[in-house]
Amino acid sequence: MTTATPPRQLHLNVNILHSGFVPSAWRLPGSDPGAFIDVHHYTRVAQIAEAAKFDAVFLADNAAIADQIHLRPITAIEPTILLASMAAATSRIGLIATASTSYNEPYNIARRFASVDHVSAGRAGWNMVTTADLASARNFGRQEVPDHQQRYARAGEFATVVKRLWNSWEDDALVADKATGQFVDAAKVHPILHQGSHFAVHGALTLPRSAQGHPVLVQAGGSADGLQLAAEHAEAVFTASTTLEESLAYANKLRAAVRAAGRPAGSLKVLPGLTTIVGATEAEAVRRRDELVDLIPWEYNVTRLAGILGIAPDRLHADQPLPDHIELPAGGNGNHTFFHATLSAGRRDKLTVRELVRRLAGGGGHRVVVGTPEQIADDLAHWFASGAADGFNLMPDVLPDGLQDFVDGVVPLLQRRGLFRTEYTGSTLREHLGLARPPRH
Amino acid sequence: MTTATPPRQLHLNVNILHSGFVPSAWRLPGSDPGAFIDVHHYTRVAQIAEAAKFDAVFLADNAAIADQIHLRPITAIEPTILLASMAAATSRIGLIATASTSYNEPYNIARRFASVDHVSAGRAGWNMVTTADLASARNFGRQEVPDHQQRYARAGEFATVVKRLWNSWEDDALVADKATGQFVDAAKVHPILHQGSHFAVHGALTLPRSAQGHPVLVQAGGSADGLQLAAEHAEAVFTASTTLEESLAYANKLRAAVRAAGRPAGSLKVLPGLTTIVGATEAEAVRRRDELVDLIPWEYNVTRLAGILGIAPDRLHADQPLPDHIELPAGGNGNHTFFHATLSAGRRDKLTVRELVRRLAGGGGHRVVVGTPEQIADDLAHWFASGAADGFNLMPDVLPDGLQDFVDGVVPLLQRRGLFRTEYTGSTLREHLGLARPPRH
Repeated sequence: MTTATPPRQLHLNVNILHSGFVPSAWRLPGSDPGAFIDVHHYTRVAQIAEAAKFDAVFLADNAAIADQIHLRPITAIEPTILLASMAAATSRIGLIATASTSYNEPYNIARRFASVDHVSAGRAGWNMVTTADLASARNFGRQEVPDHQQRYARAGEFATVVKRLWNSWEDDALVADKATGQFVDAAKVHPILHQGSHFAVHGALTLPRSAQGHPVLVQAGGSADGLQLAAEHAEAVFTASTTLEESLAYANKLRAAVRAAGRPAGSLKVLPGLTTIVGATEAEAVRRRDELVDLIPWEYNVTRLAGILGIAPDRLHADQPLPDHIELPAGGNGNHTFFHATLSAGRRDKLTVRELVRRLAGGGGHRVVVGTPEQIADDLAHWFASGAADGFNLMPDVLPDGLQDFVDGVVPLLQRRGLFRTEYTGSTLREHLGLARPPRH
Repeated sequence: MTTATPPRQLHLNVNILHSGFVPSAWRLPGSDPGAFIDVHHYTRVAQIAEAAKFDAVFLADNAAIADQIHLRPITAIEPTILLASMAAATSRIGLIATASTSYNEPYNIARRFASVDHVSAGRAGWNMVTTADLASARNFGRQEVPDHQQRYARAGEFATVVKRLWNSWEDDALVADKATGQFVDAAKVHPILHQGSHFAVHGALTLPRSAQGHPVLVQAGGSADGLQLAAEHAEAVFTASTTLEESLAYANKLRAAVRAAGRPAGSLKVLPGLTTIVGATEAEAVRRRDELVDLIPWEYNVTRLAGILGIAPDRLHADQPLPDHIELPAGGNGNHTFFHATLSAGRRDKLTVRELVRRLAGGGGHRVVVGTPEQIADDLAHWFASGAADGFNLMPDVLPDGLQDFVDGVVPLLQRRGLFRTEYTGSTLREHLGLARPPRH
């Protein structure tokens, strides 16, 4: 008698970017423009994703108005509050939110995410970001953004402190013996006594470990510093790769760095971001994309693209190609890679600015797949089989409709091919992702 | 035709102190010792309070283990996460939580509470505290507690910034015109451009105003600095008065300070803390109290009382009166007032330490009423009629049972006397408390 090894399956998160990835999503006849501040919008999307057995929802964040709010929604509600709301409305799906290491204190972040982990019975994840925008810096007493290296040095120490706080209680510290009156075995609750260059934190945390040990640590940066941070701390990485080759190279580099940091290779999952636009036929999907993109005010597109290129907006003309003699953004660093590849291809193919903007699907900085459910399932399966991805952080064009299209069309195909679960086998985020419950040290 | 003025009614909050106010509450046969980290415990208590038409739930907080955790539960889960959970499980009751002005950034606090206000459709309140304990200071890079004046200077500027952020959007800033593509009228979203001695915050907030304008601002300190802070900013004050005379004097001082700050007197509600121990007869209620207090490990009582008195624990003996020649804590500053009054009376009556501890009901620092529903209703009505209280922040001995006893026994009596609502007339916390929706400036 032999025991079959369970087949390797891919992981799916849905990134709930308010009304959807495409900046005009709120303008569709079926969209509620108030969705970005409506908790029911978020819980509804989470319930659709849970019914489809997704691993997790994912919330981006910015503690500032960091986009052209006169033309599109922003991340408005503080995302751990939304996670708690979604925890109450679901029972199995994982709950990941973003929080900045530059504009928070590690004790507060450790406690907040551990709290979400407790109220959700072990379904929380923290996506740590260092926050590169000036608008955020200005809300926290700074006139400029701390430089990249400084931000990542702080982030590394921040993550260390947070993990030590999450592990400050031994698993059997809570005694609760009504007969003797002993509530906690204080010898099993350990102050962390951290003294570093950025933080001094005595500890312990106010909370025991959770059903999954502690929240899953997610990271999103693609720079050299980001890779090192991920190698040391992250259990899932949300990447921004455009081509399979590039994603595979990056995933392998990441896996090697994880091993070099003394961790098992399987302890980190690579989840590229992916915008999906689903149609019954390829032509319908492309038409849907073009209509959506054409519904973005031109001012938005031009401002956004000019910003990426570092040029004045008036140098861009809708029906002309990109001006000659401008430098494209360098690759190799998160979203920039995506822009570099798309803009290079655009220049090669002599696309007009309007055509380019369509390819960028509004310029959010992630790969866009446009097609039938079969085409999208093939794409996912190909990336997954090659090792370029352990799964995907999906950013549907429009929410909830684009997610519903994906769930109805693509998920059954993935399930039929044995690539995606048909039922949850675990109850924690860590179990969904195939990550071990971390030991205390 | 005349319009009847609605009768003045009192306000009731329940302070959800994990298993209950008395430190031994977790040891009762019916108590779940894991309640302090069980979200369902909190939502159940909130639902009982909502069924009884309470104004709000209230959550204390400490971002540190600040009590003898080997003997009793602590405030463990970060309270805004619990508010979001309770928001999902209720529809009308207000939701107030505590957060520190010393160990947070105003942008984060403004955003977090505004987020709770949005997910609860206008039911949030923020209890601002300056955090006086050393354990908290040590979790945020400090080796000692910042001094009182320093903490209150920061708190005053903190509150100013938070309120300006809450008001940074005009009420009609969100346009969401699908036809034109205008999402927000950016001219109606105002950076606050705050430059102060403690903070520099550009703004605006990521969120529009809520159904109630912005969260209700609650304050709890009884010192001179605390009074000034309340007079300028607070809309409800959680006080710790022991006698009616003292409470009335304090309430009048507070109301005068509010007027002096240019605000209408009714714009601040005085809500003394009150621990309730309900019995079918007075003797049964006293027996319940004594049994509960006697279930607290003696080590806890001695450590706590010695801490209040500033003496070594070995100077206290259960069956002897307080030692002579020790100074009682001075009155006039929050919980200290309660201790001063109770300890003075104890010395006068030559109570033993054990009897004193019973009167303190475990030493949590608030007035304790022990009696039948009629006696408790009389007490509340008397305080309310005299002007010493606009309502009460109730701290039932045991949760949820002690709240259920209050709701079943005391609430109907108050309702019969016309002193408490029998149905919600509004849907926001501000409406429950009879506070006007604040203008933007």
